[in-house]
Amino acid sequence: MQNYKLTISYDGHAFEGFQTQNRPGCRTVQDELIKVVSKMAKTPVKIVGASRTDAGVHANGQVINFVFPFDLTERAMLMGINSQLPTDILVKNVEKVQLDFNARHSSHHKRYLYRVSTSKFVDPFKRFYTGHYFWRLDFDRIQAALPDLLGEHDFASFAAAGNQTATTVRRITKAELKSVSNDHELLFTFEGNAFLYNQIRIMVGVLLEIGNGTRPVHDIERLIQVKDRQQARFTAPASGLYLDKVYYESTN
Amino acid sequence: MQNYKLTISYDGHAFEGFQTQNRPGCRTVQDELIKVVSKMAKTPVKIVGASRTDAGVHANGQVINFVFPFDLTERAMLMGINSQLPTDILVKNVEKVQLDFNARHSSHHKRYLYRVSTSKFVDPFKRFYTGHYFWRLDFDRIQAALPDLLGEHDFASFAAAGNQTATTVRRITKAELKSVSNDHELLFTFEGNAFLYNQIRIMVGVLLEIGNGTRPVHDIERLIQVKDRQQARFTAPASGLYLDKVYYESTN
Repeated sequence: MQNYKLTISYDGHAFEGFQTQNRPGCRTVQDELIKVVSKMAKTPVKIVGASRTDAGVHANGQVINFVFPFDLTERAMLMGINSQLPTDILVKNVEKVQLDFNARHSSHHKRYLYRVSTSKFVDPFKRFYTGHYFWRLDFDRIQAALPDLLGEHDFASFAAAGNQTATTVRRITKAELKSVSNDHELLFTFEGNAFLYNQIRIMVGVLLEIGNGTRPVHDIERLIQVKDRQQARFTAPASGLYLDKVYYESTN
Repeated sequence: MQNYKLTISYDGHAFEGFQTQNRPGCRTVQDELIKVVSKMAKTPVKIVGASRTDAGVHANGQVINFVFPFDLTERAMLMGINSQLPTDILVKNVEKVQLDFNARHSSHHKRYLYRVSTSKFVDPFKRFYTGHYFWRLDFDRIQAALPDLLGEHDFASFAAAGNQTATTVRRITKAELKSVSNDHELLFTFEGNAFLYNQIRIMVGVLLEIGNGTRPVHDIERLIQVKDRQQARFTAPASGLYLDKVYYESTN
């Protein structure tokens, strides 16, 4: 019995999200991994993922773990899985870890990126890989708003209907914006201990509306106060969201 | 009657190439354009493309033209077509041109790019957008070979079986290689008056084999001499090829 920690990337556009669903014809990342790893193990293997990314959401660095019946080398595990996975999922790294390591519960914090294409029309090469915002954007207004997200707050206004967590209090440790001007792109970086259902896509929606001038610069302070998810309606599309990195205390 | 010259880009991965084919269920760029423009014209409109790109080949700057029964402004034409095209094709520019302009016959020369991913495994985000070469590559060997392509030569060894042109003599005016090291990518740029069927993909195949050491550095000189397409077998995949720009004498 050996516990393996894998870092994987995937192009989310042809998946109905990470998590297995009990619907026929529903392709998920977890199902593809279960299929390959169980075949190698010759027995069903349970896959734990750090984040249950939504349909269309991408990953540069999702982390999963599973307990495997045989002791393969890290390299053999990486080659074995990659040779059988569909080409929209890739295992980037394999690490043997202690049996008590759990990709979800052991995670310390996570980094997400959100790419917004600001060109006038949707670039065919970006249609599945960025969000799109065609309206006027004042970069400085967004920069001024970002610090309002930092720290521990009740993000109830930023949780979508499906959110089922006990508390909506979360801590955000990084909220940054970079302009990739040659590419007509904005790149948001968010780090935090955990995020509510659709939280980042709703935060990006609010930030873009602040940038456009349809919300006051410090509207985030008000949204945190009111704890009312009806007040933040625009959810930026899944296509721009990337789970970039999952941080752990012990292994890294 | 007004002749329009359009610059378009498309993500080729879901198309069976540019040109209309008489096979059911075969999706082509030309068909999509004919559908939209004919609907706007309320009569069938013939679309001429500068280059008949193959299945899976992309375009940053394909040029087309068509004669339209009404005189729309360039902006109205651009907005009208883009609002009806599928999101994997985009009209980037519209220009009114003389009636005798023909996107194919008036073209002076063309620029193609070829992206090669050199990472160990196929990056999920690049699987449709680059070629892949997993083997050892000596960048300097390829650089030394590139000038052998320049000038007017009989490229019979570099034409695929389907080539139907009267002569296989072509003039190449640019053949360059750049390393995009952060992205584990090589980027080839080729310019010439015209190219034979699959010529660029075969040239890239030969150049990669030169880089890998399985061909001598100046094997291109020999291939040009022997005029035998059996000698250059490896055709680099369509996914890495981009029609980047079409040049014209008069309009540009």
